[in-house]
Amino acid sequence: MENWIIGQNQNDSLVVSSRIRLARNVKDIAFPNRLDDERSKSVIKDVEDAFYKFSNNRELFKTIYMWNEDKTSQEAFLEKHLVSHKLLTNSSKAAFIIDSKETISIMINEEDHLRVQCITAGLNLTEAFEMAIKVDDLLEENLDFAFNEKFGYITTCPTNIGTGMRASAMVHLPALAMNEEITGVFKALTQVGMTLRGLYGEGSQALGNFYQISNQVTLGLQEEEIINNLTAVINKIITQEKLSREHMLRKYKYELDDKIFRSLGLLKSAILINNKECLYNLSNVRMGVEMGIIKEMDIKILNSLLVATQPASLQKNLGVKLSERERDLKRAEIIKEILK
Amino acid sequence: MENWIIGQNQNDSLVVSSRIRLARNVKDIAFPNRLDDERSKSVIKDVEDAFYKFSNNRELFKTIYMWNEDKTSQEAFLEKHLVSHKLLTNSSKAAFIIDSKETISIMINEEDHLRVQCITAGLNLTEAFEMAIKVDDLLEENLDFAFNEKFGYITTCPTNIGTGMRASAMVHLPALAMNEEITGVFKALTQVGMTLRGLYGEGSQALGNFYQISNQVTLGLQEEEIINNLTAVINKIITQEKLSREHMLRKYKYELDDKIFRSLGLLKSAILINNKECLYNLSNVRMGVEMGIIKEMDIKILNSLLVATQPASLQKNLGVKLSERERDLKRAEIIKEILK
Repeated sequence: MENWIIGQNQNDSLVVSSRIRLARNVKDIAFPNRLDDERSKSVIKDVEDAFYKFSNNRELFKTIYMWNEDKTSQEAFLEKHLVSHKLLTNSSKAAFIIDSKETISIMINEEDHLRVQCITAGLNLTEAFEMAIKVDDLLEENLDFAFNEKFGYITTCPTNIGTGMRASAMVHLPALAMNEEITGVFKALTQVGMTLRGLYGEGSQALGNFYQISNQVTLGLQEEEIINNLTAVINKIITQEKLSREHMLRKYKYELDDKIFRSLGLLKSAILINNKECLYNLSNVRMGVEMGIIKEMDIKILNSLLVATQPASLQKNLGVKLSERERDLKRAEIIKEILK
Repeated sequence: MENWIIGQNQNDSLVVSSRIRLARNVKDIAFPNRLDDERSKSVIKDVEDAFYKFSNNRELFKTIYMWNEDKTSQEAFLEKHLVSHKLLTNSSKAAFIIDSKETISIMINEEDHLRVQCITAGLNLTEAFEMAIKVDDLLEENLDFAFNEKFGYITTCPTNIGTGMRASAMVHLPALAMNEEITGVFKALTQVGMTLRGLYGEGSQALGNFYQISNQVTLGLQEEEIINNLTAVINKIITQEKLSREHMLRKYKYELDDKIFRSLGLLKSAILINNKECLYNLSNVRMGVEMGIIKEMDIKILNSLLVATQPASLQKNLGVKLSERERDLKRAEIIKEILK
C-alpha cells in the first residue's frame, strides 16, 4: 500500500487519499470511557501481545504510547492522519501501533478499544479494506472481539454498530466549491447515507477545498457494498468537479490561469504566511497541476507541503516551540525551500 | 539633461523626476481660449518660425501637431509627461515641439500661447531651469512676449503671473503614505505656498504613492528663490520618508519584506492585472529596490514599467484598440517580459 503523502497515486490525483477504519472492542472489557488509565494500559498490553505474536510484526511495526509524546508530536500525528482527535483526548491512556510506511495504524483506547485504520494514496478503498481486514484477522486470532450474531460488531457509539467500518476518501473539489455546487453535493450525499466534511477547518468553504466523503451507515450492509457504493459516488463527484473545471476553462481561461499563477507566485515569494492562506493557495496550485496548467510539478510535492505546513508538523520539524508569527515565517521558508 | 524614464538618476531615486514649466504669451495676440483654430495655427507657425530659425534646432527638434495624432497617441504623450491635459483638450489647435531625448517640450496653445517644459531624472530643478531659460531665451530673440515691468510675464490665469514658472518634482513616498503622515506633509506644504498632488489618480492615497510637489506662488519671488526653497523642502520630505522607512525596517522587518516580495511575486506571475493594482505593486517593489531589499534590479526598469503599463502607452505599443480586459492581459504580459 502506498503512503498517501509521498506514495505514487496510481489513479486520479483529485482523490488525495482513501481510508478504511474498523471499530472493534475486546469482549467482556468495559468500553474505554469506563476504564481508568491502569486498566486501559492493560488493554494496550493485551493488544500488543496479540499483534506481536506474529514475529514478523515486531520488525515492521512499533507502538507509540501517547503519554510519552509531547503535545506537538501528538498533533503532528493527527496532521498526517495517522491518529484521530479522540486518541489525543485520551492521550494519558491511549497508544497506536504503526508500520514504517505509515499506512496502517492500530489505535488503542480511542472511542473503542481498537480502531484499525488503513490509509493509502488515491482512490483505493478496496485495497485499503483488504489490508485492514488482514490486520483485523491477525488480531482476531488472539483476541476475542465483542460480536453479536444479529447486530455484528458491538461499538461504543451505536452509529458504528454492524460492520464497524467507516470508509472515506479525501477529495479536492475547488471548482465545485467556487461555483457553490458543493452544497448540492452535500445534500445529495446525505440522502444516500453518506457525509461530506471539510477536512481542514469548519465552515461552508473547507480550507484548501479538501473534503472527506464517507459512509454514514454501518448496519445492514456488507463491507463490499459500502465500498462499492462509496467508490461509485466519489467517481460521480469527480466527474462533476471535472465538468465544472472544464466549464471554467472554456469560459474564464485567463481568470483561472491568473488565480493559479498568482497563488504559485505568492507561495514562492511570501515571507510570512498563515495556515489558512497557505491552504487556499496550495489548493489553487494543486488545481493547476491537476489540470495540466502548471507543468513540471509533482503532486507529491503538494501533498508534502499540505502536511509540512500544518502548525504541529512545522513545529516538530524544527524542534522548537514557535509563536504564531514565527510559524508564519517558518512556513513561508519551508514552502519556498520545497517549491524550489 | 537625462530623460526621466530611461536616464541615469544621479542622486536620490526617491525623486523620480524634476520639471520646470514656463508660461509665456505672445504680445498683442489674444490668449488661446479666445482664438479660433485658424488663428491658433498661425500662432504655432510664428513659434515654429522663431524657434527653427536656429538651424541646429531643425535637427534636434520636431513639431507634433495634436490634430494629426489619434486619441491613444495623445494620451501616451500625457503618460510620458511630455504634454499636459490641457493640450489634449485643445488638440484641434495645439502642437508641441519636442527634442529627440524627450526632455524639452514646448507646448503651443495650451492655456497660454507657450508652455516651455523641461523634465529630467532625479532631483535636478536647477539644471531643468537652466535648460528652460535657454529655450526661453532662444524664443524671445524672435518673439515679443507679453511682459509688464511691475507684474512680470502676463499669463491667462493670474496664478501664473510673475515668473510664469512652475517647478515640480515627482517623489515616491510610500512609507509616509502608509503611516498616514502624508496629510501632515500636505498641510505643511500648503502653509509655505507649495502643493502636493497625487500623480496617478485622485483621492487621499495617490496611486503608486507618487506625489508631485510644486510651488504655488509665482509672483514676487525670483526663480532661483523658488527653486532653492522647493529643493530644500523636497530634501526635508525625503529625509522624513527615509526615517519612516527605517522605523518600519526596525519594527516590522518581516512584514515589510513580505509586502515587497509578495508584490514582486505577483507582478512576475499574474496573468491579468489592472492599472491600479499594477501601480500599487510597482510602488512596493520600487521601495524594495530603493531600500536595497530587492537587489540586482535597476530602478530604470521600474520607470519604464511605470509608463509602459499605463493604458494609452500599452495600447500604442501594441498598435491595436484593446478592451479593458485585453489591456489587463497585455499589461501582465509586458510586466513579466520586462521583469525577466
